[in-house]
Amino acid sequence: MSKPLDYENLNENVKKCQYAVRGELYLRASELQKEGKKIIFTNVGNPHALGQKPLTFPRQVVIALCQAPFLLDDPNVGLVFPADTIARAKHYLSLTSGGLGAYSDSRGIPGIRKEVAEFIERRDGYPSDPELIFLTDGASKGVMQILNAIIRSDRDGILVPVPQYPLYSATISLLGGSLVPYYLEETANWGLDIVNLRQSVAQARSQGKTVRAMVIINPGNPTGQCLSEANLKEVLKFCYENNLVLLGDEVYQQNIYQDERPFISARKVLMDMGGPISKELQLVSFHTVSKGYWGECGQRGGYFEMTNVSPKTVEEIYKVASISLSPNVPGQIFLGLMVSPPKPGDISYERFVRESKGVLESLRRRAQIMTDGFNSCRNVVCNFTEGAMYSFPQIRLPPKAIEAAKKAGKVPDVFYCLKLLEATGISTVPGSGFGQKDGVFHLRTTILPAEEDMPAIMASFKKFNDDFMEQYEDYRGYSRM
Amino acid sequence: MSKPLDYENLNENVKKCQYAVRGELYLRASELQKEGKKIIFTNVGNPHALGQKPLTFPRQVVIALCQAPFLLDDPNVGLVFPADTIARAKHYLSLTSGGLGAYSDSRGIPGIRKEVAEFIERRDGYPSDPELIFLTDGASKGVMQILNAIIRSDRDGILVPVPQYPLYSATISLLGGSLVPYYLEETANWGLDIVNLRQSVAQARSQGKTVRAMVIINPGNPTGQCLSEANLKEVLKFCYENNLVLLGDEVYQQNIYQDERPFISARKVLMDMGGPISKELQLVSFHTVSKGYWGECGQRGGYFEMTNVSPKTVEEIYKVASISLSPNVPGQIFLGLMVSPPKPGDISYERFVRESKGVLESLRRRAQIMTDGFNSCRNVVCNFTEGAMYSFPQIRLPPKAIEAAKKAGKVPDVFYCLKLLEATGISTVPGSGFGQKDGVFHLRTTILPAEEDMPAIMASFKKFNDDFMEQYEDYRGYSRM
Repeated sequence: MSKPLDYENLNENVKKCQYAVRGELYLRASELQKEGKKIIFTNVGNPHALGQKPLTFPRQVVIALCQAPFLLDDPNVGLVFPADTIARAKHYLSLTSGGLGAYSDSRGIPGIRKEVAEFIERRDGYPSDPELIFLTDGASKGVMQILNAIIRSDRDGILVPVPQYPLYSATISLLGGSLVPYYLEETANWGLDIVNLRQSVAQARSQGKTVRAMVIINPGNPTGQCLSEANLKEVLKFCYENNLVLLGDEVYQQNIYQDERPFISARKVLMDMGGPISKELQLVSFHTVSKGYWGECGQRGGYFEMTNVSPKTVEEIYKVASISLSPNVPGQIFLGLMVSPPKPGDISYERFVRESKGVLESLRRRAQIMTDGFNSCRNVVCNFTEGAMYSFPQIRLPPKAIEAAKKAGKVPDVFYCLKLLEATGISTVPGSGFGQKDGVFHLRTTILPAEEDMPAIMASFKKFNDDFMEQYEDYRGYSRM
Repeated sequence: MSKPLDYENLNENVKKCQYAVRGELYLRASELQKEGKKIIFTNVGNPHALGQKPLTFPRQVVIALCQAPFLLDDPNVGLVFPADTIARAKHYLSLTSGGLGAYSDSRGIPGIRKEVAEFIERRDGYPSDPELIFLTDGASKGVMQILNAIIRSDRDGILVPVPQYPLYSATISLLGGSLVPYYLEETANWGLDIVNLRQSVAQARSQGKTVRAMVIINPGNPTGQCLSEANLKEVLKFCYENNLVLLGDEVYQQNIYQDERPFISARKVLMDMGGPISKELQLVSFHTVSKGYWGECGQRGGYFEMTNVSPKTVEEIYKVASISLSPNVPGQIFLGLMVSPPKPGDISYERFVRESKGVLESLRRRAQIMTDGFNSCRNVVCNFTEGAMYSFPQIRLPPKAIEAAKKAGKVPDVFYCLKLLEATGISTVPGSGFGQKDGVFHLRTTILPAEEDMPAIMASFKKFNDDFMEQYEDYRGYSRM
C-alpha cells in the first residue's frame, strides 16, 4: 500500500514545477565537486560564493553590532568599529522591540519600511507609502506571496517573458495557474514587442484563460537587457487597457553596464504618465539585498511595494504574511542599510563608495569580457549584457549534435551544457530552463567569476565549444547555411 | 471595472484563512500602542520582545564574528571575544562557500545538517541521516512546505488537535485542504484520547475525505501539556493503522516545567517500537531556534527531519525549496549552535549554562505564578503549563456576558479579551482563534512577561476579571449552576 508521502501521492502541482537554476546541471555539478573536480558555479547569481567580498560598512556596523549589542557597552568597541557604524547600530536596535531575536511585525519593522519609502521617493521623485511596503525573506518570497493572492485556478493566466527567470514558471505551476508566454526579441537585443504581447493575450483568451497579471524583469534575467522609458510606457498602457496587474521585478536596478538606458522604475514611468492610469493601474515592484553591489544573497532581505492596491487587499496579504510570523530581522536591517547607505561626510562614506564602485566597475568589465568571449566562439552569438548579472549566448547547435543529444535522451542544450561541465567544470544553466523559441538553443552563465579568472574561463569555454562544433559539424549543417 | 488585485478578485483560499495570533486583538493592541497606551504583548511567543536577553555565546561568537569576518584578522579581537567563540566562527565560515552573504544549498548547509543529525542521534539514541534533514526559515516554513507536498484538494484531510496553533488551520486553508479536528480533553489535562481520534477519522471518511496526515504539538501550543511515551505510542500505532503521515511539531522540546514527563521525541518512540512500523511509518519532525531558552525568533532558523520518506519524495521537496533559493544563512548558523552548544571545558561553557538555566528556571516559576494566578480568579480554571510557553485558561462567561457580546457583534471570548486589553493593556488571543468546544471559552497568553512584572500583571488581570464577572453575573448564571 502506498503511503501519503510516497511520490505517487504527492500534490501534482509540486511534481509539475521545474526549477532549472538548481536542476539537472546543478545536481551533476555538485556530484562532480564531491568527486574532487573543480567547479565554477555560474548557474546562480550568488556573488559572494564566487569570491566577491561583502561591503564592510553593513557587516561591520549594523550586523555585527546589532547581533552583539553587548559590544556597544564594551570599552574596546571603538578600537574595532568606526563611530558612525556604532550610531547606526543603535538606530536600528531602537527601531526593533527586542533586537534581532524578536519577531517583527509580519510586514517588517515599521521604521525600516519608512526608510524604504524614503529611498523610493528620492529615486523616483514621488512619495511612497510605508503601509504599502512589505519586507520579505528575499524578493522571491514576495513574488510568491503576490502570485498566491492573484492565482485562483488554471484559468488564471500570468504573462511571463520568455526567456524568463524560472521563479515565475515554477511558482505559477506550484500555485496551479497558467503561464502565458510572451517572447522577447533576441535580434532586437531582447526587446519587448507589444505586438507579441497582444498575440499572447489573444491566444490565451481564445483558450478560455483570464489573463490577470504581467511580469517584467528589468534589467532582464537571463537576458540582460535594460528597458527604455518608451518601452515601459507601452507596457504600462498595455496593462491598463487589458486590466492586468504589473509585477515589476527590479532586483537588478543597481546592475547597469551601459549609459544609454539608465535604470528607470516602472513606478516612476507610471507616475510621470499622470492621469487615470497613474491612479488606477495596479503595480507591485520587487527589490532585494541579494544583487547590486551588495550581493548579500544569504541574508534573505527584500521588499515589495504596491501601487494602487486597496487597504482591504493589503490586509489579506498581511494576514497571509502573518502565518510565517515575520521575515528574518537581520535581513531587514541589511535592507534598511541598502536604502540608506552612508552619506558624504560620514566616517564610513569613502570606504563604502570605494568598495561599491569597485564591485560595479569590475562587473561592467566582466560583462564586456564575457560577451566578447562568447562572440569569438564558433556558432555562438551573444547580445551585450546591458544590466543584471548574466550572459545568455545563443549556441547554434549543428544537426549532428542535436541527433547525438536525442540519442542520449537529452534536450540538445542540456546535452551541450553537460558536456561543457564535464570538460571544463563550468556549471551553467541550459536555455531550455528559461524558455526559448523552438529549435534555438542558449545557455545562461553569470558574469560573476573573479575578474582575474575571466580570461582563463573564457579560453576554456572557447576551446570546449570550438572542439564540440568541430566534432559535430559536417560543413553542411544548420549553422553554416 | 474591478481590478485583479481588488478584494473580490483575490484567491478565495487567501481570503478564507484565519490567523488569530495576529488577528483582531493584535491589531487593536497595535492601535492602542500608537495612541500611547502601554501594551503587554502576550499574544505571541516572542521572548526577546518581552525583555528576555539573548544568550551571549551564539551572538558573540558566531554571529557577530561570522557577519564580520574581518574581525578575525583584527589584533584587538581577543580583547572583545573569547577564544572558543573565534574558533567556532571560523568553523562555521569554513562550512559555507562565501560566508553569510552567499546562498547555501536550498536544503541548508551540509555541515550544519550533519550537526543536526548528530544532535538527534545524541538525543534519541538512533542515527539520523543528514540527507533527510532540511533547514528552514523557522519551523513554520517547514510545516508549510510539507503540507504543500501532501495536500492535493479539499478532499485531503489533515488531523489537527483542537485547540491548535493556527499555523495549521491557516496553512490548510491556504493550500485548499480540509482540517479534520480531534479534540483534546481539557478535564484530562489536555490529554489526547485515541477514541476521539477514531471518531474524527470516521466522520471525515463518511464525508468523502481521505485523511492523509496527523499533526501533534508536543509540548502543546496553546495547551501546554506534555505527551507521555504511552500516549505517543498509541498515536504512532493509530497513524500506522490508518496510513497517515505524522507531523510532530516539537518546537518546545526544551520548554519543560515538570519532571514526571520529560520530553521524548516521536521519532525515539517510533524507533523504540521496532518492527515494521519503525521502518514504514512516515514521520516529519520540526524544531526551531525561536523557542527553548534561545528564543531567537527574529533570526528565523528551523529544521525538519523526515523518517521513512523515499529519496524521490525528498527530491521533490528539495526542488520546491529551491524556488526560494536558500533559507537565511545566519539562521542556519544559530541552528548549528543550538544543536552543538559549548561543551564542558570550553571557555564559554559556564556562562552559557548559567544563562540558559536562568531562562528556563525563570520560565518554570512564571508558569506556576500564572497558573496559580488564573486559578485564583472568579470563573477561571486553568491547567498547569507543563511545557511550551503558554497558559490557556478557561473563562466561564456568564450568560449576560455572552448576550452583551452578541449585541456588540463579537464572539464572546473576543469580547472578553478586547475588554481585558482596553482595561489592562494585556494583549491575549481569544480561544476561538485556536478552536474549542461549543459554548466553552478560553484565552491564550504567553508566560513570557518578565518575572518581576508577573505579580502585577496577574493582579491587574484578576481585578479586571473579577469586576467583569461581577458586572455580568446575575447569581443565576451558567457559572454558578
